Amino acid sequence: MTATRASGTNAVRYGTMKDNVLALTVVTADGEEIRTAQRARKSSAGYDLTRLFVGSEGTLGVITSITLRLQGIPAKISGGVVAFPTLEDACKAVIMTIQMGIPVARIELLDEMQIRACNAYSKLSYAERPTLFVEFHGTEETVELQAAQFGEIAAEFGGGAFAYTANAEERNLLWKARHNAYWASRALAPELAALSTDVCVPISRLAECVAATQADIRENGFLAPVVGHAGDGNFHVLLLFNDQDAADVEKAEAFLERLNGRALAMEGTCTGEHGIGQGKISYLEQELGSALPTMRAIKAGLDPNNIFNPGKIFRL
Amino acid sequence: MTATRASGTNAVRYGTMKDNVLALTVVTADGEEIRTAQRARKSSAGYDLTRLFVGSEGTLGVITSITLRLQGIPAKISGGVVAFPTLEDACKAVIMTIQMGIPVARIELLDEMQIRACNAYSKLSYAERPTLFVEFHGTEETVELQAAQFGEIAAEFGGGAFAYTANAEERNLLWKARHNAYWASRALAPELAALSTDVCVPISRLAECVAATQADIRENGFLAPVVGHAGDGNFHVLLLFNDQDAADVEKAEAFLERLNGRALAMEGTCTGEHGIGQGKISYLEQELGSALPTMRAIKAGLDPNNIFNPGKIFRL
Repeated sequence: MTATRASGTNAVRYGTMKDNVLALTVVTADGEEIRTAQRARKSSAGYDLTRLFVGSEGTLGVITSITLRLQGIPAKISGGVVAFPTLEDACKAVIMTIQMGIPVARIELLDEMQIRACNAYSKLSYAERPTLFVEFHGTEETVELQAAQFGEIAAEFGGGAFAYTANAEERNLLWKARHNAYWASRALAPELAALSTDVCVPISRLAECVAATQADIRENGFLAPVVGHAGDGNFHVLLLFNDQDAADVEKAEAFLERLNGRALAMEGTCTGEHGIGQGKISYLEQELGSALPTMRAIKAGLDPNNIFNPGKIFRL
Repeated sequence: MTATRASGTNAVRYGTMKDNVLALTVVTADGEEIRTAQRARKSSAGYDLTRLFVGSEGTLGVITSITLRLQGIPAKISGGVVAFPTLEDACKAVIMTIQMGIPVARIELLDEMQIRACNAYSKLSYAERPTLFVEFHGTEETVELQAAQFGEIAAEFGGGAFAYTANAEERNLLWKARHNAYWASRALAPELAALSTDVCVPISRLAECVAATQADIRENGFLAPVVGHAGDGNFHVLLLFNDQDAADVEKAEAFLERLNGRALAMEGTCTGEHGIGQGKISYLEQELGSALPTMRAIKAGLDPNNIFNPGKIFRL
């Protein structure tokens, strides 16, 4: 689980985790410690080594310190929850919110199965429908306005009652379902193994990609709730399966193959947050095959003896 | 002049130009065209080649196409201008605005000499004081609120009357000084050569860095207006000097040496936007000397015959 996934902060407003890394110190293959940047908010001084090492999954060097960009604590934070008739309606509300320039801080999508799991686990009674959890950061006046504007947009796409609060305790209650989503999903079948995976598509394709994935899940009888960072076009599937049963493992692998193929066909990526590791090496080949020689040349140049996390991201 | 400099969009809200590049196609040294990413808003799939090629100043390959992130045109744009007693007051207002989480779209600082140049060139009558030009993007209600909140902050730091409008024509008039800043500066002494340079420091050091630079300019009798992307801690100096006079050239070079040394001493960078090229090779060595072997290894790996823009960024 990455910090981004845990917090669900919308990259539209705060950038991704990568965007919030200003500088690194890294020990390179020759044993030297290098610094990749100073503390300025932006720089055009040489190659962007910060971004090269972030997301390289330990294959280029050992990161020994990180300089992060700090975000101010907003004067006011408000949050809300609203359910939609269909997934497409929820996604259209997200797109309209972004197009209107409403600076939403978080906008998270939970699908019907995820809501059902959350209701059971956290003893809640949300309608079992595609649901958006939103959060606004600003001053007392701006968060009120933004919430009101979002409420209008949600209503336009058939959203039900928009439960909304600027009170911190009430907000934590509203967001409880989202915060406990992982454990709620596990509790659907504690005896099964859980595989957490993610893909990311252009936001305009998000509804289509999630809906096709839900149909796939239904057809195969999987327990597999979906949680999306809707503002980024990124979503997670927590696939529950019996890892002691060869047939179930095979079925799960075939599902992952279809999920990644679907995202790639929609000009998306096989991973928005989780990375490639070993499990997605073949999907990276499909996604960015033409770029692999360049990645390998970088690896060879910076780690000629292949001492850093060998066997990850791509085959040498 | 980069697009960022021309528009002065605040990286706090929209990210830098780099952040708005989603993907590239690049022809590499072996003559192959590679694609660095899909169209998803974020990805963790392999090394971030997009960011490596952007800002590499043509030294790693030839960029043949760019996929940009689009920003929605806001429903409403409002703009304003306010002068401050001192540079420090103006910078404190910037810091407070950011700390309050007011999503300012542009926040540009023009120093006294720049305002004087703009008044003369564009026939305006702004007070010759450090001045902030701001712009807010959102809906009718939010831009009003944000402008009001900014006005209060400006007043708190001694800002004069905050001229503000949501009318597009009036806004263009208000911003005219900023838009014409480059030509206004040139017009201070059309017979002189102009050297445009930039540095970037942590925002907390911006006032100190600009003030010390102004003192340096005064002591040496330079014509050298300052324009800052204050929200980023980034500022430009347009140094006017006689490039036919060896003594003046030497004086200008010594000034640049001090300007860059000052930025580096404040944990800043020798360039926020312009890049290294040939002129800043020695400053990059001072700034990120420990990282140069890594940059050289990347260059050697991707361009073994040194065919791409040789002699730029660093010495091989």
